[in-house]
Amino acid sequence: MVSRVSTMLYHHGANILHADQHQDHELGLFFMRVEWALGPADGSLSSAADKFDLAAFQAEFAPLARELKMNWKLTSGERRPRVALFCSQYLHCMADLLYRWRAGELECEIPLIVSNHRAVETLAAFYGVPFEHIEVTAATRVQAEVRQLELLGRHDIELVVLARYMQILSPGFIARYPSAIINVHHSFLPAFTGAKPYHAAHARGVKLIGATSHYVTEVLDDGPIIEQDVARVSHRDQVEDLVTRGRDLERMVLSRAVRWHLDRRILCYGNKTVVFD
Amino acid sequence: MVSRVSTMLYHHGANILHADQHQDHELGLFFMRVEWALGPADGSLSSAADKFDLAAFQAEFAPLARELKMNWKLTSGERRPRVALFCSQYLHCMADLLYRWRAGELECEIPLIVSNHRAVETLAAFYGVPFEHIEVTAATRVQAEVRQLELLGRHDIELVVLARYMQILSPGFIARYPSAIINVHHSFLPAFTGAKPYHAAHARGVKLIGATSHYVTEVLDDGPIIEQDVARVSHRDQVEDLVTRGRDLERMVLSRAVRWHLDRRILCYGNKTVVFD
Amino acid sequence: MVSRVSTMLYHHGANILHADQHQDHELGLFFMRVEWALGPADGSLSSAADKFDLAAFQAEFAPLARELKMNWKLTSGERRPRVALFCSQYLHCMADLLYRWRAGELECEIPLIVSNHRAVETLAAFYGVPFEHIEVTAATRVQAEVRQLELLGRHDIELVVLARYMQILSPGFIARYPSAIINVHHSFLPAFTGAKPYHAAHARGVKLIGATSHYVTEVLDDGPIIEQDVARVSHRDQVEDLVTRGRDLERMVLSRAVRWHLDRRILCYGNKTVVFD
Amino acid sequence: MVSRVSTMLYHHGANILHADQHQDHELGLFFMRVEWALGPADGSLSSAADKFDLAAFQAEFAPLARELKMNWKLTSGERRPRVALFCSQYLHCMADLLYRWRAGELECEIPLIVSNHRAVETLAAFYGVPFEHIEVTAATRVQAEVRQLELLGRHDIELVVLARYMQILSPGFIARYPSAIINVHHSFLPAFTGAKPYHAAHARGVKLIGATSHYVTEVLDDGPIIEQDVARVSHRDQVEDLVTRGRDLERMVLSRAVRWHLDRRILCYGNKTVVFD
Repeated sequence: MVSRVSTMLYHHGANILHADQHQDHELGLFFMRVEWALGPADGSLSSAADKFDLAAFQAEFAPLARELKMNWKLTSGERRPRVALFCSQYLHCMADLLYRWRAGELECEIPLIVSNHRAVETLAAFYGVPFEHIEVTAATRVQAEVRQLELLGRHDIELVVLARYMQILSPGFIARYPSAIINVHHSFLPAFTGAKPYHAAHARGVKLIGATSHYVTEVLDDGPIIEQDVARVSHRDQVEDLVTRGRDLERMVLSRAVRWHLDRRILCYGNKTVVFD
Repeated sequence: MVSRVSTMLYHHGANILHADQHQDHELGLFFMRVEWALGPADGSLSSAADKFDLAAFQAEFAPLARELKMNWKLTSGERRPRVALFCSQYLHCMADLLYRWRAGELECEIPLIVSNHRAVETLAAFYGVPFEHIEVTAATRVQAEVRQLELLGRHDIELVVLARYMQILSPGFIARYPSAIINVHHSFLPAFTGAKPYHAAHARGVKLIGATSHYVTEVLDDGPIIEQDVARVSHRDQVEDLVTRGRDLERMVLSRAVRWHLDRRILCYGNKTVVFD
Repeated sequence: MVSRVSTMLYHHGANILHADQHQDHELGLFFMRVEWALGPADGSLSSAADKFDLAAFQAEFAPLARELKMNWKLTSGERRPRVALFCSQYLHCMADLLYRWRAGELECEIPLIVSNHRAVETLAAFYGVPFEHIEVTAATRVQAEVRQLELLGRHDIELVVLARYMQILSPGFIARYPSAIINVHHSFLPAFTGAKPYHAAHARGVKLIGATSHYVTEVLDDGPIIEQDVARVSHRDQVEDLVTRGRDLERMVLSRAVRWHLDRRILCYGNKTVVFD
Repeated sequence: MVSRVSTMLYHHGANILHADQHQDHELGLFFMRVEWALGPADGSLSSAADKFDLAAFQAEFAPLARELKMNWKLTSGERRPRVALFCSQYLHCMADLLYRWRAGELECEIPLIVSNHRAVETLAAFYGVPFEHIEVTAATRVQAEVRQLELLGRHDIELVVLARYMQILSPGFIARYPSAIINVHHSFLPAFTGAKPYHAAHARGVKLIGATSHYVTEVLDDGPIIEQDVARVSHRDQVEDLVTRGRDLERMVLSRAVRWHLDRRILCYGNKTVVFD
């Protein structure tokens, strides 16, 4: 597989920048990620770059992939994915993502912010991102999702980031965006699933609190884990201290997950992820 | 309380080396740990040290503690607690504890090693610690504990360290050593309780594995947590890699827990611990 | 000392919330931090709180401190210190500090932002903090500092935070704010002092990069260290990756340093700090 | 390069288990590591394995490498490198390496332990490794190295591990083992080079102490860094506490470096290392 793929890339004038291949013995799977530039390794200008045709390459690659039974994805690093951010009243993840986006750390378009609260409104305005306030109550849940999906469709959204969005999405919504909804949970999953994880962590007397970013699947807090991190706490920390401390973790693990997704470094298999460095 | 205790210490010629006081608002508890030397702060020789009588101080302190409704404990830093180490076939924690003990990191006596396997025998001999092999099967479980308790009693054991001892102790055994049996569990509790936590971690696809040292209570893997630590893993790690990686975590969290216990830095309340720095 | 101080506090109706005492054998120093509330521990309303007179307590405490040869400081937790933020063109620390301030993590007033660039202007406006643009060139350095000091004086500034302010302050300026100017340096000091630490780190091939927050003294990058943190890097990271990765470290170590300073947890001695937990 | 190499491997019946390629733009270098098994990916027995001839493959590979201007190395994962351990009076790294070796974590032969002290003698005997005591004084330094080199030669040593060996090796010695002497230094280099780094760290008041494993080159403490790690310290820690705390770091970074070297994961270029995951 490595031989065939790299040889085809060579014939198309591709210059491999970084590649990673890994075989999972247990599952009998072989993972491969190749990132390339066009033109020679010495960086001199190449006529190949002008002529490279992604669609043509794809057409030639497809039969090879079929022959080798590959699941594959081919994208241009130049295309910036379109992302929607969802949040509720807590804005630390939102503020962090928007700041990183502005600073150039996140290579994407953000044409849409959705919230069931108005707290994010001034922040959205500061960053010039259109904000849609969609209230969610037991009574309006269904029509709220209809409205959300309509907005996602209209804006050609490819990735939904739940930046502490405190509402549960329906299976129907989730099915529309497989491996394309990233959530942050405020515990080191699978510990403390469900609501109020910091309260649960405090009650159990753990010495580390954590946060987890993961893709959303139908089962709550059970999707493929992308990133986790922890921080040390002590007996001096009350629940509110855990909440404050945890915010930094949430920011970190969510922004890393979003960046890796945008960089096409994540590959889902079973209920797990491969994150290529 | 701080005023009354420190004043009494002052009158006995104590020189506070380190003290820590903390109030837990929620529970309405006040924690206090005081470590002192005898004699003046300048280190000059003092006649007080010769005359200080722990029993006499204790007798004077008791009524004050009653008046202020304190739960208290008074120990001499010179007395080295007597510790028994239990293990099964995996010896990494054992080897680590014994090495640290020999190197002077653990201030205790270790007059006894107990195992249901013979693997530890040469290691015990190298460190000159008497080793007792007590087989445990479904049929012999009860009489094995009788024999273990008899040995613990004969050696005046004050702390039992389960250094990857893979047998479950009975409630009766545990009740004999409240807050005096330290176990290491190979996950960041409360995630992955029970058997085979590394297999469970691998199956769930976590990005961090952990280990937890805790006091043993009747409920399996549920006692007060003393210390936890984690390490990063990736999709490249198979279960056996997690096991190898995890060994270092287990060694660390167990040896820290034992050291803190020996230094009288741990205080249990409810199902939690205060670990004074 | 513990006895005398705690007894005086008791007589004034103080209820110790948290206290920490530590003796440094080598230097023959004894450190003590006491944080108290007024009124009884059970939280019931106390008439003492109304009557407590900080100035009166201070007057009574001063002779005791003289007698025991203490260096001491007494402040009310209610008083919010007045802070000025300085920056240049990089805004990640600025954005982080202002966000945390707005979110209630930093208990202070921020009446002034100073920069030698205009990049921070819209951010300052968003948070409603007056912004002063003071250009600094070789020719204007002296008068720039005169203007800066005039502004600091007019706003009663007690703490100056250099949030990636890329100009060197004169000894005269620094002398006016002893232990009251906090800087962030983008390396784990004392490694890579001076300019371009990420370039130096990359050239040396380190596996960890770091950041350090410290009080500013006359000697560049040599003041008392308050906080440090590190992150793992690999051969795949170019200088620009270190810069991006390092930003998160800088944000973290600077915001922690500022918070601890505001919480009066830092005590300087010699060229070091005690940071009480 | 990827295409040519993987195609040649394919023709020899190699089944790639893990591969990593990386291009360093700045230096114009391309790094590649390929690990393969013989026989088909499905793990079924293959006749190729029996017939694979490392020498023959090498003969065919050499012209390709010349053509593509590669620096290359080809080794069989089955061959266990021969390692000598050097130490002085501190044995924590020694005890750790020997334990890991016995536990199967280090895939090598250890036919020789050399020390200028006798402290390691019983440990060496316990693990059944021949021990050579070679005293080193100013007067005997030269003849000590002659003796050491003679032993290394006789035992076909390929890797020398300085496990807290407190003597400086001569340039002549070092030149005999390029990228084949691993040392552990007890600071996060380049901070605190030279002797007594813990004293220096304590004097500077750092909040993190570290340890560094690196290849030895002529310039003291300046060779290519393989691994670094740090631990948090506080004002409560005296020099002796840093020493104790640091031991765990030293053990960790040295054992990781040795394992990675044995696994052929390290590649030196310039004064740096690539460590393939």
